[in-house]
Amino acid sequence: MMSKAHSLLILWMLISLFQLVNAQPPRGPFVVSPKVHADKTVTFIYLAPGASEVLLSGQLVKDPVSMAKGDQGIWSVTVGPVEPDIYPYSFKVDGVTVMDPANEDYFPNERFKASLVDIPGDEPLVHALQEVPHGTITYEYYPSVEETTGSLVVYTPPGYDDDPDKKYPVFYLISGTTDTEETWFKVGKTNLILDNLIAQGKAKPMIIVMPYGNTAARVAEQKGTPKPDDPMRESKEAATRAQAFEDDLVNHVIPYIDNTYHTINDRESRAIGGFSRGGGQTLRTAFGHMDTFAWICCYSAYLSPEDMESNFPSIAGNPEETNEALQLLWVSVGDDDFLYEDTVEFIDYLKTHQINHKSLITDGGHTWMNTKKYLSETAQLLFQ
Amino acid sequence: MMSKAHSLLILWMLISLFQLVNAQPPRGPFVVSPKVHADKTVTFIYLAPGASEVLLSGQLVKDPVSMAKGDQGIWSVTVGPVEPDIYPYSFKVDGVTVMDPANEDYFPNERFKASLVDIPGDEPLVHALQEVPHGTITYEYYPSVEETTGSLVVYTPPGYDDDPDKKYPVFYLISGTTDTEETWFKVGKTNLILDNLIAQGKAKPMIIVMPYGNTAARVAEQKGTPKPDDPMRESKEAATRAQAFEDDLVNHVIPYIDNTYHTINDRESRAIGGFSRGGGQTLRTAFGHMDTFAWICCYSAYLSPEDMESNFPSIAGNPEETNEALQLLWVSVGDDDFLYEDTVEFIDYLKTHQINHKSLITDGGHTWMNTKKYLSETAQLLFQ
Repeated sequence: MMSKAHSLLILWMLISLFQLVNAQPPRGPFVVSPKVHADKTVTFIYLAPGASEVLLSGQLVKDPVSMAKGDQGIWSVTVGPVEPDIYPYSFKVDGVTVMDPANEDYFPNERFKASLVDIPGDEPLVHALQEVPHGTITYEYYPSVEETTGSLVVYTPPGYDDDPDKKYPVFYLISGTTDTEETWFKVGKTNLILDNLIAQGKAKPMIIVMPYGNTAARVAEQKGTPKPDDPMRESKEAATRAQAFEDDLVNHVIPYIDNTYHTINDRESRAIGGFSRGGGQTLRTAFGHMDTFAWICCYSAYLSPEDMESNFPSIAGNPEETNEALQLLWVSVGDDDFLYEDTVEFIDYLKTHQINHKSLITDGGHTWMNTKKYLSETAQLLFQ
Repeated sequence: MMSKAHSLLILWMLISLFQLVNAQPPRGPFVVSPKVHADKTVTFIYLAPGASEVLLSGQLVKDPVSMAKGDQGIWSVTVGPVEPDIYPYSFKVDGVTVMDPANEDYFPNERFKASLVDIPGDEPLVHALQEVPHGTITYEYYPSVEETTGSLVVYTPPGYDDDPDKKYPVFYLISGTTDTEETWFKVGKTNLILDNLIAQGKAKPMIIVMPYGNTAARVAEQKGTPKPDDPMRESKEAATRAQAFEDDLVNHVIPYIDNTYHTINDRESRAIGGFSRGGGQTLRTAFGHMDTFAWICCYSAYLSPEDMESNFPSIAGNPEETNEALQLLWVSVGDDDFLYEDTVEFIDYLKTHQINHKSLITDGGHTWMNTKKYLSETAQLLFQ
């Protein structure tokens, strides 16, 4: 008994100290948040005795929702029923955006911080953790441009390690603006989606390589030169950035992966895809290296007709050759996406020039809920 | 030109949308934070036009430091010179604790959110990313207690995949209260510390397995039963939790690892260690399974004499046998640690009963700066 009481005191002191060190609110009631209920409503809870306004903000509510203050300074709100999916959210506390301190699931990003809530379906969704054989996610370092060290997140399918002689096709998958190389794993659930599709026989076992999209910023950081300024400010820098990523992917990442993993090292077994900025990088890199990729997946992104004509004239200039070369050119976007019009214009450009492609228009906007959907659709087409 | 101007507009819209969706402050100047200067001072910057007070809080400052409001609502403060190391920090904005939105390096934890700042040394520190052969970090699922699925983070040393016949010893490394299985990787820099020590010939190549410490909570979450209440509240639950972890590690994690990785499957090649709560779990699990582990590393934790006498009487009851069985019993703590007195009492208990051990008392407190130091010290002793 004595020893238990003792160890409990220690536990209490440990957590108190962590809270002290990290300037948490004074020790209060233990908060569990979020709470997902059987009826698909979700209760969000935030401890803030001193706050005068707390809002729930995120992609599962149209507009920020006021939370109500209860006993002991516990703010809460219940929303929904919510359509089953994984949604980013945050709290706005007297105007300050914060993650949910009680929730360990986070959205890796360089410019904002958000938590993630997972509302399960009655039937398991394609990204649900199920009792199927699981692949693994590996964090890798590789020799990158300008003698810097880059980092990759790599999915290998179930059984990958069982047979060193078995070789796999590779899907290079790029995330969005200000995302990191972790975002496709942590938010996109790449590993679980592929585990499930492979178990159902709907997707070919493949390696998925998730690089970091802003090579120039990482190089600057490692060289100790100032990080590039605001990505939106200088066109010159933007062009340099695009080139730096392309150079890194084609001349550094791909050779490293082909040397390190059991890959089928040819263009017919190599796909490239991406979301948002990563979709633009996908189109530029693929159209600029038709000898490298035979499968192209563009999620919620596009190139303008002007861009196509000035930078990639041969794509529409010789459609027979383009169609001969490409196994898949996929373009998808949500009808509420702010890039919807531009993406439809890109799709029309492909139609007009008789370039074979598959397009998918879904409900919803420029979100990772849609991005997961596009990944699960295209993963069933690749290398088939 | 047209296409560039166009793509810049898109970039701007993308980031604006992310900010909108995630309820960020209205689009303002581009903030880079933190900025680590050559003289080891660090400037922290936070954009909050509406805030009336912003403090910097964390383990690189003794007490929270006021930040000054400048043009365009940019708050900033420069601190230091700071002793080179990696420190957790956060901002306190009108009393609300937030991570640094501009910093992608985070402290994975279930109860608080903090960012990380890395101040490099003149000579590379033991956790610095250097040009040496790198091991990899793998995220794994495994079949855990009560037919649930557990997750592990696993370090494999450089060259691990080159020779399937080469077998390695295994170090099971447990993190602290409210940490996750990612914390040893993201904050403890386990992979970089081992990469560097192995490259210098100071550490034996080994596999390091980092489990999640709060098995009972994860089981409850997967079973859909309510998450256990406040860990500090019920001694009964605390005992159940300790038992659940021990059962999971010994009967599920270790067999899974020995089946999945190239391990040397004997107690002489198996070590266990941990920080804080993980240190207590280390001592209980090791003393309760002397047939399983020959190497024990306890960082900033202890068991009370009462606990030792009531639960592990044979350890001091038969010191010759204990000394014969253990290759290493390591205990370290900082002299500012709130567990210092108790840990010294544990060390004295070992001395009094003539149980062989190595102890290290360092400056500093109950921090991950000290924990990294203890890992780098013990990694040089294990399996030697």
